[in-house]
Amino acid sequence: MQCDVYFISESTGITADELGNSLLSQFPQFSFTKRYHPFIDTIEKAEALVNQINEVAQDQTVKPLVFATMAKSEINKTLAKVNANYYELFDNYLAKIASNLGVEPRRESGLMHGLVNERQYDDRIDAVNYTLAHDDAMVLKGLDQADVIMVGVSRSGKTPTCLYLALKYGIKAANYPLTDDDFKKHIFPKELLKFREKLIVTTISPQRLHHIREKRRPGSRYASMPVCASEIKMAMDMYDRHLLTPLDVTTQSVEELATQIVRIYRTSKQIA
Amino acid sequence: MQCDVYFISESTGITADELGNSLLSQFPQFSFTKRYHPFIDTIEKAEALVNQINEVAQDQTVKPLVFATMAKSEINKTLAKVNANYYELFDNYLAKIASNLGVEPRRESGLMHGLVNERQYDDRIDAVNYTLAHDDAMVLKGLDQADVIMVGVSRSGKTPTCLYLALKYGIKAANYPLTDDDFKKHIFPKELLKFREKLIVTTISPQRLHHIREKRRPGSRYASMPVCASEIKMAMDMYDRHLLTPLDVTTQSVEELATQIVRIYRTSKQIA
Repeated sequence: MQCDVYFISESTGITADELGNSLLSQFPQFSFTKRYHPFIDTIEKAEALVNQINEVAQDQTVKPLVFATMAKSEINKTLAKVNANYYELFDNYLAKIASNLGVEPRRESGLMHGLVNERQYDDRIDAVNYTLAHDDAMVLKGLDQADVIMVGVSRSGKTPTCLYLALKYGIKAANYPLTDDDFKKHIFPKELLKFREKLIVTTISPQRLHHIREKRRPGSRYASMPVCASEIKMAMDMYDRHLLTPLDVTTQSVEELATQIVRIYRTSKQIA
Repeated sequence: MQCDVYFISESTGITADELGNSLLSQFPQFSFTKRYHPFIDTIEKAEALVNQINEVAQDQTVKPLVFATMAKSEINKTLAKVNANYYELFDNYLAKIASNLGVEPRRESGLMHGLVNERQYDDRIDAVNYTLAHDDAMVLKGLDQADVIMVGVSRSGKTPTCLYLALKYGIKAANYPLTDDDFKKHIFPKELLKFREKLIVTTISPQRLHHIREKRRPGSRYASMPVCASEIKMAMDMYDRHLLTPLDVTTQSVEELATQIVRIYRTSKQIA
C-alpha cells in the first residue's frame, strides 16, 4: 500500500524528518512517498502548500500524512486546514512543558538548527577539522587533543563514525587503522597506549569485513576471508594483552556506534 | 532557573534528543542539565533508571523533564511511573497513524537508526568515502559521479556541509575551493562548468570570512579583510559571468545549508 507523506517546517525540518521517519519505520507494510518542505515561514507559503497538497491528495487512495514542526501558531493554523492527517509535533508539548516550567515558550523558528549558539557551532566545525586531519592515522601528533581515538582494522567503519561524532556532537575523534606494520611487531601501537583512557578499540566479524573490503577491492588478497580473519584475530590478541575491551561494530550503524562512544566519553568525563 | 532533563530510548535516542532539544530551545530562560540514556531495552534497566531519576529528583527545585521514545509498550509503562514530567514521544502518534492507515505498528526498536536497510546504509558510507576523496578539489577526476559540487572561497564552510550531506542523506558531495590560481585566470574553472547542473556556488560576507580565517591563521594576509573582500568580489564576478546564483552562507548553519542543497538536488532530480 502506498501513502504520501509531507514533512513541513518553518526552518530546516530536521526534527519533523527525524520523528516522522521514526514513526513511519514502525509501518513497514506501507510504501511511503516522501516530500520535504522546509522554510515554510510565512502564511502565504503555507497557503500555497496547502493548496498543492490538497490537489495531489485528490488522486490518492490513502489520505496523506503531514508531519510539521511549527513554532509559530499562526502558520500552524493555516497548515492545519490541509485535507490530510495533520500532525504538528511541537504545539502540544510546548504547551505542556510551558505549564510544567511555569514560563512561556519563545515560539521562534530556527532555534534548534540555526547559527544560534555560535561558540558551540564553532566547536563542532573545529571538531570536524580535527577529525579530518587525524583520519586514518594521517597525523599522530596532536592526539593529546583528541576526545576519543578509534582503533581497528582497516575498513571497519572508523572514519564515518568519527565524522558523525565530530559533526553532531563536536567530539574530536581521531582514528587509527591497525596495519601490517603493527601486526608484524605483534604489539599494540605504543603511541596510542599513552592515551589509554581515550581509546575505543573495535572488532568486526570476518564475514562482514570481507563483504566491505570486497566492494572496495574485489578479489584482492586484502579482501580475502583468510586475511580478514587473521587481521581480526591479531587485533583481538593485542587488545587482550592490554586488557582493552573491543566494541563489536559488525551489526551496528554509525549512529548506534556513535551513541555508545558518546556514552563512554561522557562517562569518562563524568558528564553523564 | 535550572531543570534536569533526561533523554531515554530503547535504541540510540537520536529522535528523543532531536525533538526534546527542539522543544527545550523554545525555553531559553532555563538552564537545562541534560542526561542521555540510550539502549534502555529491558524492564529491569527501565526500573533501575526510574529509581535513579527519582533519587536525584528529590534534591531538585524544578521537577525533571523526561523525553522518551519507546516503541515497546511494556517498557514505556515502567518508565512512565517516574516522578517527573514524562513525555513519551511515540505512543500517541503511533496509535493515531495506525488508525489513519488501518494497520498495526511493528513496535520494534532500532528500526530508524539501526542497520535495517543495508543497501541504503552502504550508499551513505559510499557517499562519505566519495566526499572525502573529493574534498578540497583533491581529485577532479570522477566529478561526473558527484551528486552536487560545492564551490566557494576557501574556509566558507564547504567541507562540513558536504560531509553532512553524505552522512545524513547519502549525497555524494564534492567541493572545490576557488583559489589564487582561479582568480589570476579571471575565469570560472572550466572543468566545473561541464557539470553546471550540479554546481552549488556560495558566497559569504567579508566580515564572517575574516572571522573564520583569523581563527585558523591569526594575523595572516590570507585572513585580512582586504584579501577576504577581494576574493569574494572576484568569486561573485565569476558567478555573474556564468549566470550562477550563489547561496549566501554567512548566517547559515551546516544543517540549514544542507537542507537547501538537498532541496535543490531533489528538485533537479525531480524527486520532490
